Amino acid sequence: MRMAELSAESGVPVATVKYYLREGLLPPGERTSPNQARYSAAHVQRLRLIKALTEVGGLTLASVGVVLTAIDGDATPHRTMGFVQDELAGPVPKVSAEAAAWATGLLEDLLRRTGWKLHDPGQPAFANLVAALATAKELGHGKLTERLEEYAELAMRVAELDLAVVTGLTSVDKIIEAGLVTTVLGDRIFAGLRHLAQEEVSRKVLGGG
Amino acid sequence: MRMAELSAESGVPVATVKYYLREGLLPPGERTSPNQARYSAAHVQRLRLIKALTEVGGLTLASVGVVLTAIDGDATPHRTMGFVQDELAGPVPKVSAEAAAWATGLLEDLLRRTGWKLHDPGQPAFANLVAALATAKELGHGKLTERLEEYAELAMRVAELDLAVVTGLTSVDKIIEAGLVTTVLGDRIFAGLRHLAQEEVSRKVLGGG
Repeated sequence: MRMAELSAESGVPVATVKYYLREGLLPPGERTSPNQARYSAAHVQRLRLIKALTEVGGLTLASVGVVLTAIDGDATPHRTMGFVQDELAGPVPKVSAEAAAWATGLLEDLLRRTGWKLHDPGQPAFANLVAALATAKELGHGKLTERLEEYAELAMRVAELDLAVVTGLTSVDKIIEAGLVTTVLGDRIFAGLRHLAQEEVSRKVLGGG
Repeated sequence: MRMAELSAESGVPVATVKYYLREGLLPPGERTSPNQARYSAAHVQRLRLIKALTEVGGLTLASVGVVLTAIDGDATPHRTMGFVQDELAGPVPKVSAEAAAWATGLLEDLLRRTGWKLHDPGQPAFANLVAALATAKELGHGKLTERLEEYAELAMRVAELDLAVVTGLTSVDKIIEAGLVTTVLGDRIFAGLRHLAQEEVSRKVLGGG
């Protein structure tokens, strides 16, 4: 297909498509003349993915670039997803050394009890979790952390459901893309469902109106 | 306490504290002389809350202002939390009308089966959920949405745990603040646990290394 059709199919404006081509986020089309190129269904899918990552996932274009380079690489799905999750984790908020040490101890204890293994205990996903727990503690809402093991148990059940989404896919590329979509959209979808459920619980218990 | 102590206690630089005072995010201290004011533990807590909302929650200062105005108001906790969640939901991503209609039908069906009631079906939390589901569909990852009822069931169990965090609190202010913290930090904490769990599941099933 031509550029105009690519834009219409993906819902991404022509100027933006050209920008992504220049930035290397979208691979070039097959050149058919000095001024024209032909694009494929893979280009449409790539544009939809970029749109999902930026608009729904809230990623910056710089992060999208890092993530796309990782999924285009030839690492194993497991390693690629580890890398992608590190990038998605974003910058780690600053907390006091005391609160961070407390939260790290809490998480190490959780990992011991659950038997979960981390590819790298210094990974941003872990550091972000430490920062969020430390912040809850500093704010005097330590109760949130007292139920950590129960939250972790439910998180494992969600992760098992997530896995069901990628099972049955045969190509490694598709598995990695599905993993990425499950992580980025899945977090948004679950947070949305949790908010609706919180409203339902709040209506019943705190009294609606 | 004086400004210097307020800054040290909260971990927020003096210049930033002054900016928050000017912007009305922090209520003024009790004036003790034309150039000095005294601040209380409530000021420290408010600064920690602003820090948590911006650094961990990723909220803009404009959103923080809207949220703080809501929690300082005199609406019921249930209504205040509804309002706060709408603000937290952020801008709704654009999706095609066709995909949006499909996702809306899916969610309406879910609400019928679960019996959950919404304070406003046009609320941003609902619209965001529609957009995320529609995006998954457009990307060809509809499997994520096939398990929606199971995700919703787990989300309800998480929301019930969240409620346990606010139960036992007696002041309305504390309930609202805990609700806010549970929502903002709770989403980050649960997403973090889910990512660790995904890594564990991926290591076991897809093969680690």
